[in-house]
Amino acid sequence: MAVIGIDLGGTKLLGVLADGGEVKADAKQKTPTQGGPLAVVDAIVSLVKDLGGPKAADAVGVGAPGLIVPGTGVVARAPNLPGWVDPFALGAALSDLLDGVPVAVDNDVNVAALAEHRLGAAKGEPDVLAVFVGTGVGGSVILDGELRRGPTGLAGEIGHVVVRPDGRLCGCGGRGHLEAYAGRAGMERRARALEAKGRDTMLVDLAPAKRMTSSVFARALAGGDAVAIELIDEAVKALGVAIATAVTLLDLGVVIVGGGLADRLGAKFVSRIEQATRSQLYGEAGLRVAPAALGDLSGAIGASLIAEKAAP
Amino acid sequence: MAVIGIDLGGTKLLGVLADGGEVKADAKQKTPTQGGPLAVVDAIVSLVKDLGGPKAADAVGVGAPGLIVPGTGVVARAPNLPGWVDPFALGAALSDLLDGVPVAVDNDVNVAALAEHRLGAAKGEPDVLAVFVGTGVGGSVILDGELRRGPTGLAGEIGHVVVRPDGRLCGCGGRGHLEAYAGRAGMERRARALEAKGRDTMLVDLAPAKRMTSSVFARALAGGDAVAIELIDEAVKALGVAIATAVTLLDLGVVIVGGGLADRLGAKFVSRIEQATRSQLYGEAGLRVAPAALGDLSGAIGASLIAEKAAP
Repeated sequence: MAVIGIDLGGTKLLGVLADGGEVKADAKQKTPTQGGPLAVVDAIVSLVKDLGGPKAADAVGVGAPGLIVPGTGVVARAPNLPGWVDPFALGAALSDLLDGVPVAVDNDVNVAALAEHRLGAAKGEPDVLAVFVGTGVGGSVILDGELRRGPTGLAGEIGHVVVRPDGRLCGCGGRGHLEAYAGRAGMERRARALEAKGRDTMLVDLAPAKRMTSSVFARALAGGDAVAIELIDEAVKALGVAIATAVTLLDLGVVIVGGGLADRLGAKFVSRIEQATRSQLYGEAGLRVAPAALGDLSGAIGASLIAEKAAP
Repeated sequence: MAVIGIDLGGTKLLGVLADGGEVKADAKQKTPTQGGPLAVVDAIVSLVKDLGGPKAADAVGVGAPGLIVPGTGVVARAPNLPGWVDPFALGAALSDLLDGVPVAVDNDVNVAALAEHRLGAAKGEPDVLAVFVGTGVGGSVILDGELRRGPTGLAGEIGHVVVRPDGRLCGCGGRGHLEAYAGRAGMERRARALEAKGRDTMLVDLAPAKRMTSSVFARALAGGDAVAIELIDEAVKALGVAIATAVTLLDLGVVIVGGGLADRLGAKFVSRIEQATRSQLYGEAGLRVAPAALGDLSGAIGASLIAEKAAP
């Protein structure tokens, strides 16, 4: 069965034409910065056409960055998509413009976790926690082979668990959340604050005004920059605390770590997270923390997997 | 169907003869302090006889304080039972001495959570976290109506999640675990340490050498004792952090708080835990934190529920 999977990101759209998770073709577009949900719908339709159009696929799946009302195709909130203010029935709108082909929508992190579980680093495992470390920190929990969404669709939000009570301010307004320590955006805020207080750091030299990318962190680390080392140490420790909590609560054997920052910092970063997690763990669980295996395409491949379920 | 449920505790054994969770008779005994597992088996057999003997029941269930190998009746570890050093096939040993009646064994906290889910404060809820605050802090997670045990049987151990990195030493050797802040034993250690450093406290006056019971904490709190107030504040905050983490990870709507200390401190304590949890929560979940409803008998009633499943 041929299906199309779309990874709808804050800066780009990635699409694949796939069969059983095997990628036959891929394409990409920039995410429109103007025009809100309708412009995003047009961009997705255009990307589907680049991949052969609705006739080429039995169904389309979309992984979207936000809160999806389970089973409805409605994106209730998507703070990282420009101009996306109100809930929007993305699935229905796309299906209308794609000759009625079925469209499934789920959270981007959930579909990436599904892909890693079905085809990637957690293949064959009953239970998996997937953690994606990028601009923010996303997570997803698969138990007994089933994704845990929860009644409001918010399950898995490991980025917003408290790793240090009364700690650093998170982008969401909370305090001491994992994302404040281990998300690229939180680390960038911290680096600029330290620089403003007089700490010298390559991080700001390399990204004086523009976004402090994962590559910037990697280069500063490689250059022995003290602030970068400190920030990554704090990120590793915070990830260890949060992951250990999830492992203890749920008795997990495998954790997958992916996302832009983790991909860029590589296996050594993931190995450090494994050590930090073990140091906080209760019990002698034979825990494995492994890098995600599908890289940048995990979201689009995962979206193709939910499309398969939606196909007639 | 008549079944017998036994709650095997560190100090006492509570038993019920029950039908569909409805208690027809109850009985108790002291937990033997000598003789290890075989003495415990004899005490359980005697308690079963007090409740009508094996002929009166289609099955027997036991909730035991320790790590149970799922589905085997083997208690792998039970650090709170005197002389219980090696793994012991409690289910098989009991069945032999009880004319072959089927015996089911599960963790004491798991069976108490099952009872609260089936008949108590979480009746009718799909997902529940149950937290039992007593000498230690135990927990159990029910998702979509099913108890999450995990491959090693350790799931739900909320007492050993890290609420403060590098924080207070836990009885298990870890640092900053919930149990170190919110378990009665951890609070007692802390109270005695503060007193040794010169802080005056009713807690030590009321329990100079003997165990600092939940009643001692309640009386010191009622008397406005500053150390007791401080310890309970810390416990509430730690419980809020740990429970919020579980709620965020799993998207839970209901949390039940029971156990000796929580029962003794009452609804106000549970209400404070609800507030502390909400203050750490991500998202607008309509979270309810409720006191356990079955009190001291929850373990024995829960044990009767697992007996029903084991009955022929």
